[in-house]
Amino acid sequence: MSSIFTKIINGEIPSYKIAENDDFYAFLDINPNAKGHTLVVPKQEVNKLFDLNEELYNGLMSYSRKIAKALEKTIDCERIGMAVIGLEVPHVHVHLIPLKEMADIQFSKKVKLSSNEFEAIAKAISNNL
Amino acid sequence: MSSIFTKIINGEIPSYKIAENDDFYAFLDINPNAKGHTLVVPKQEVNKLFDLNEELYNGLMSYSRKIAKALEKTIDCERIGMAVIGLEVPHVHVHLIPLKEMADIQFSKKVKLSSNEFEAIAKAISNNL
Repeated sequence: MSSIFTKIINGEIPSYKIAENDDFYAFLDINPNAKGHTLVVPKQEVNKLFDLNEELYNGLMSYSRKIAKALEKTIDCERIGMAVIGLEVPHVHVHLIPLKEMADIQFSKKVKLSSNEFEAIAKAISNNL
Repeated sequence: MSSIFTKIINGEIPSYKIAENDDFYAFLDINPNAKGHTLVVPKQEVNKLFDLNEELYNGLMSYSRKIAKALEKTIDCERIGMAVIGLEVPHVHVHLIPLKEMADIQFSKKVKLSSNEFEAIAKAISNNL
């Protein structure tokens, strides 16, 4: 069965998309730790980050850098944090999180945003690419 | 003033070193979230991950992958998690953490190890490179 991220990439589940290319898809986490919390996912469904082949791994990191720089321009924060965990969804995803404090990257504190807010944030990040 | 990581890289502060090359230095975190918790640091002292130039950023990610693969062979875990935060030490450092559960990457649970254990772990990871 396809992962939830593959369904998002294929448009079977809607998402607040920021950008995509042939290999990667970037969109807002709908249960964000902080405003602007973004996921960057390889279109190829691989479970673990370090099982990606070298080319795809390097491509994912490079694409995440590009998105992070746009995110940093868009959201007021101290810096952009990055985390790859993957204990919940078995499809590699890079978390890019605008940080003001440590709690923003501990995945326990969550923020609520409206659809309008999500849409505006995704568009603003995309415009800064 | 040099960061604590620059002092470690220069040997002014001792560390449980795993490996180094011209640009990067990998060693065990002495206040680990989990056994095998490793830091990978660029020798150039830059505060924020996404301020590294493209070449150094890509090199850091590539070197971290190599270390993570050795770590995964050495430590019993579900997978290796990666995090870059940097709110405490203003010198880029990639956390590579053997994960069994979410708490292992929340930086609140810590494990205590003896010097002998640290030494043995660093040597074992290094031998798996």
